[in-house]
Amino acid sequence: MAKFLGRHLIAELYDCDEEILNNVTEIEYQMTKAAIECGATIVTSTFHRFLPHGVSGAIIISESHLAIHTWPEYKYASLDIYTCGDSVDPWVAFNYLKDAFKSGRQEVIENKRGMFETIGVPNDSLHKVEVK
Amino acid sequence: MAKFLGRHLIAELYDCDEEILNNVTEIEYQMTKAAIECGATIVTSTFHRFLPHGVSGAIIISESHLAIHTWPEYKYASLDIYTCGDSVDPWVAFNYLKDAFKSGRQEVIENKRGMFETIGVPNDSLHKVEVK
Repeated sequence: MAKFLGRHLIAELYDCDEEILNNVTEIEYQMTKAAIECGATIVTSTFHRFLPHGVSGAIIISESHLAIHTWPEYKYASLDIYTCGDSVDPWVAFNYLKDAFKSGRQEVIENKRGMFETIGVPNDSLHKVEVK
Repeated sequence: MAKFLGRHLIAELYDCDEEILNNVTEIEYQMTKAAIECGATIVTSTFHRFLPHGVSGAIIISESHLAIHTWPEYKYASLDIYTCGDSVDPWVAFNYLKDAFKSGRQEVIENKRGMFETIGVPNDSLHKVEVK
């Protein structure tokens, strides 16, 4: 089986709750909760509310990142959930967030990042090389 | 022509300089410079160096975000450059960074985010609705 370093969900969330999408505190809370739900370890994060509307933010996790941009005026959010390693399932975070933002429709692409064969490392390499 | 809110470059940088990929100060500097080069407005950013190696970071720009994760041990970096609006060209940032990290090979997908037709808004809508 082809091996890779990470799984990156590129998600489009339509028909969301526009009040939630404009609430930076709520979005940061829900994104943080989604990261924890899927088993990720949060390293650092940053969120910002734009004027007149819209929120952007990113959470760096040990296993890569989650990022969001919202357009409350269109009830739309673009969401990236990128995780590395076998212990974290990005789909758990996705399913959590689509419900949290009350999204009526979604589109998701799962993109594999860092294919071992293309990088040129053996298939039994680790997603992080351990130093003993 | 189909309209959309943003352009998202999903880039794989291979055969990079491993010392640069392990230097959090250098990576934050080059990512910041790339954002400025492509005409973006930086809002906030966060970068982190992992032990024993590797750097992760994200820059929130008014026009969306840039994010990077590096595996110096594999000379590999995964890079996301996501910009909205017509005034910023994500390819300028990509070309700047592939040179900055001395990448010998790259793969890039350009993914359109927030297709107007799928969101369900008229084709002449703005990437941000102006409030007068």
